[in-house]
Amino acid sequence: MSWQLTEQDLPDLARGAAVLGTGGGGDPYVGQLLARQAIREHGPITVLDPDELDDDTLVIPTAQMGAPTVVHEKLPRGSEPVDALRALEKHLGRAADATMPIECGGINSMIPLVVAARTRLPVVDADGMGRAFPELQMETFGVYGVPGSPMAIAGERGETTVIDTGADNKHMEWLARGVTVRLGGVAHIAEYAMTGAQVKRTAVPRTLTLALTIGRAIRQARERNADPIAALAEALSHTLYAHLRVLFRGKISDVERRTEAGFARGRATAQSFDGQHELELRFQNENLVALVDGTVRCVVPDLVCVLESEQAEPITTETLRYGQRVTVVGISTPALMRTPEALAVFGPAAFGLPYTFTPVEEAAVGTTA
Amino acid sequence: MSWQLTEQDLPDLARGAAVLGTGGGGDPYVGQLLARQAIREHGPITVLDPDELDDDTLVIPTAQMGAPTVVHEKLPRGSEPVDALRALEKHLGRAADATMPIECGGINSMIPLVVAARTRLPVVDADGMGRAFPELQMETFGVYGVPGSPMAIAGERGETTVIDTGADNKHMEWLARGVTVRLGGVAHIAEYAMTGAQVKRTAVPRTLTLALTIGRAIRQARERNADPIAALAEALSHTLYAHLRVLFRGKISDVERRTEAGFARGRATAQSFDGQHELELRFQNENLVALVDGTVRCVVPDLVCVLESEQAEPITTETLRYGQRVTVVGISTPALMRTPEALAVFGPAAFGLPYTFTPVEEAAVGTTA
Repeated sequence: MSWQLTEQDLPDLARGAAVLGTGGGGDPYVGQLLARQAIREHGPITVLDPDELDDDTLVIPTAQMGAPTVVHEKLPRGSEPVDALRALEKHLGRAADATMPIECGGINSMIPLVVAARTRLPVVDADGMGRAFPELQMETFGVYGVPGSPMAIAGERGETTVIDTGADNKHMEWLARGVTVRLGGVAHIAEYAMTGAQVKRTAVPRTLTLALTIGRAIRQARERNADPIAALAEALSHTLYAHLRVLFRGKISDVERRTEAGFARGRATAQSFDGQHELELRFQNENLVALVDGTVRCVVPDLVCVLESEQAEPITTETLRYGQRVTVVGISTPALMRTPEALAVFGPAAFGLPYTFTPVEEAAVGTTA
Repeated sequence: MSWQLTEQDLPDLARGAAVLGTGGGGDPYVGQLLARQAIREHGPITVLDPDELDDDTLVIPTAQMGAPTVVHEKLPRGSEPVDALRALEKHLGRAADATMPIECGGINSMIPLVVAARTRLPVVDADGMGRAFPELQMETFGVYGVPGSPMAIAGERGETTVIDTGADNKHMEWLARGVTVRLGGVAHIAEYAMTGAQVKRTAVPRTLTLALTIGRAIRQARERNADPIAALAEALSHTLYAHLRVLFRGKISDVERRTEAGFARGRATAQSFDGQHELELRFQNENLVALVDGTVRCVVPDLVCVLESEQAEPITTETLRYGQRVTVVGISTPALMRTPEALAVFGPAAFGLPYTFTPVEEAAVGTTA
């Protein structure tokens, strides 16, 4: 059933999107400001459940692309992702019936809402990552046969680029990243245009609802002085992301971060409060793996989330800093994201990590947290 | 009047294009091989005089883009510039009536011939640089109001990119260079789509004929054991490139060359045979300026050409090396290329050179050569 998303939903959605961003995805606060302004100007947004899409509906997903470290300093006007959508519509010779997120974490939960409000198109409650990932080919859409091409990129000066690499989504990412770097490190895109039938077959369903559920669970626990992480675990247990495991509690002891080739890459360590255990995180925009005392406890595509210990506020990789008191949790992902085909595209090996994927509900058994 | 260009014309054309390449423009020998193969497969090429174009004819220029140092090692198949043309036609929703060079030096005198042979389109005897230049905004087309956008870029794997930066040709160059670097340092393009009326108003006319004239004059002088440089000066005196001045004779003593940001940049020096005088050349793909004993004797857009002393064979920047015996000549450019508007786009300041443009026929007075 379709529903209306209003300005009042945005704070919960932003908090949930930051959790699903697993440290990356761009700052959802920036996206929240853009979405709030768009809703104030154009009214609330119609959200469509993927199951109610007509098979031949044309859905054009929209997003922001770039290193979170840059996004942080370079605010979009809000017209850029609409420019990207229009450029792709023109190239395809067909108007979109709806937009959709390509990722459900970070700022990219919000960008399609900005597009939806400004264009009065509905937004589909689904996405292609089921979290945030750093690269454009890392999509269940592509894993299950929908090409990213043709894709459109819009810059802040109204300039557009349309890239077509056929079925090669990784080559598309390579070229689009080059354009994004030349556009100053951040750009807005429209890609993976697909039919309603393809959405139903390839998208991770109801991830806007999931982000709202996560954000609301944390807020409501805070309001009643309950443990927000326990509340989050309870709320997730009723979703496709059923398992939450606390992997580590401690203080950030070191952060190494650099912006290179259009990405924010690095690693961070934390020490347990008793000084007996060490956590190591590695990230490329998003957290990729959490090792506790050298053992992998959670690895992509499962979610590694760094939360501030008191309020469970998610901490992004670009705001990680020495001395923060954190609780690191792992969250399981839906079966759609854990198939061999999916792991080939966004499992540990796709990031050059020398680990085999083990579901967090197994890998986290025996953690000392 | 239109005329037929055959395989037999190609060696003269390649030699002339190398002179007009002023050290850059990519190796015309590679282009000659591609053009020869295309003519053998598809027949001779119809060359149209710009004056005979209908005002509403659609002309889509085609070219290769990239650092000559890379082009040298990465041969195109020949289908890539046709892919670029087709991508731009599709984007415009209209088929081209003819193609045209965007530059008349180096490989880019040949690429439109490859396109013409393969597509059976005629090629217009004109171009937008009147020589070779390293960047896409350096076009009389743009100087006199024809936008480069939308432009199409094709890679060797059939991938295409369409860039639209509106009237901002320099920004188009910036984005296209980024894509070209990601495509491996060389790509093929279609840009500055324009009407016949625009060709007549903005293009440097009859530069395919000019290249043939130059190549033929040098060859015929060799055949009769005459001085090829004197023959070249005589042949040019009847064209829009009326003045040739010998700037320097000597031996290359130093070459400094690097491929950076998609360009071959550097400088070279030569010593006169009596050891009393020094030449300094600076280049970015093409030779930009020649200083003799510290005095500017020829600077862009006028042509600085390095010729091997015996046979007047043009030497490209990527083949310059220690010990070569060279004659360096300066050649004047047409009035269209020397206006204030033109100098703003491809005069010395556009290359960051701290010199004022002075026509070679004035600047070379008093050279010691």
